Amino acid sequence: MSGTGTRLLHEAIRDRARVEGALLKVDDFLNHRVEPGLLAAVGADLAACHAATPPDLVLTAEASGIAPALACALSLGVPMVFAKKYLGPGRRDVLAREVLSPTRGIEYRVEVSRRALAPGLRILVVDDFLAGGRTAEALGEIAEEAGGVVVGFGFVIEKTFQQGRSRLAAHGWRVEALARVLSLADGRVVLA
Amino acid sequence: MSGTGTRLLHEAIRDRARVEGALLKVDDFLNHRVEPGLLAAVGADLAACHAATPPDLVLTAEASGIAPALACALSLGVPMVFAKKYLGPGRRDVLAREVLSPTRGIEYRVEVSRRALAPGLRILVVDDFLAGGRTAEALGEIAEEAGGVVVGFGFVIEKTFQQGRSRLAAHGWRVEALARVLSLADGRVVLA
Repeated sequence: MSGTGTRLLHEAIRDRARVEGALLKVDDFLNHRVEPGLLAAVGADLAACHAATPPDLVLTAEASGIAPALACALSLGVPMVFAKKYLGPGRRDVLAREVLSPTRGIEYRVEVSRRALAPGLRILVVDDFLAGGRTAEALGEIAEEAGGVVVGFGFVIEKTFQQGRSRLAAHGWRVEALARVLSLADGRVVLA
Repeated sequence: MSGTGTRLLHEAIRDRARVEGALLKVDDFLNHRVEPGLLAAVGADLAACHAATPPDLVLTAEASGIAPALACALSLGVPMVFAKKYLGPGRRDVLAREVLSPTRGIEYRVEVSRRALAPGLRILVVDDFLAGGRTAEALGEIAEEAGGVVVGFGFVIEKTFQQGRSRLAAHGWRVEALARVLSLADGRVVLA
């Protein structure tokens, strides 16, 4: 990808991301404080990644996926659905998967109402980060269980040194990411 | 307010909202499945409510506030910050308030990084619902603790039969809502 959003994103990561241990902190521009110009351009580039297979709906998970997914959905002019995350027992009438979060050491449920995903939809899954890929895999499985077709995945930032891409590729799903982080070793961000 | 977003919102509430006990369910178009045309127009109307006192930043809380707050921020061309909600112990370097959620019967922390709110900003607080007003009050207090000026509050939907507006007005804050629900009695939505 080489759109405006991708260029602005690479600049922001280079100049303003911080590395804390194994974490890449992008709170200043992506997932706590969100900049409108950057986000609108990122949304347009996420949409452009899958221009050949235009989706009917963008699916993400709360909370940090909502902003890039909405920007992408606004660019495409299609609805966006955000899955809820719960720690408690499941609800009725939902499509759900249990997801283990290695970062937080907890297991949570990702839930989407059956009402929100009519059968036959072409679905693009969007999220801020691709790392282990467990949440994204859960969203893809939910999309298919709803009778939808997963046209692909679009991530703002991928950590290529984790297993997310291979986890999703094993399903035959197409994976795109605007920025690919090769390493965070020694507190330094190395971008592809 | 009489913008396109407000008109589309009233139509959506009238035709597609559901009442479940004391809850007004707007999952089909606002806070689970989000429609791009409706949301962009709602964001523009939220921005227009405070056109006389243009903000430098839009502040909301995860998760369901993010979509309307982002739409408003995109319309204004200013950054959006979303507060994180935590059940666990607090973190360092954050501005935080404890909030009791009567709906869920739990207390949680609303947190904003000090980095995200520079002093002197003119801040508009946006959220999907105004009901008891506790989360919104916490956001307003955090904004002022950060050295900002609260130019006002913009809600997509207000439940006028709860105490939110008087709770915020007691601080001297200006409160606007695009749709005002007067009653949910007998499973019927009565709009102002």
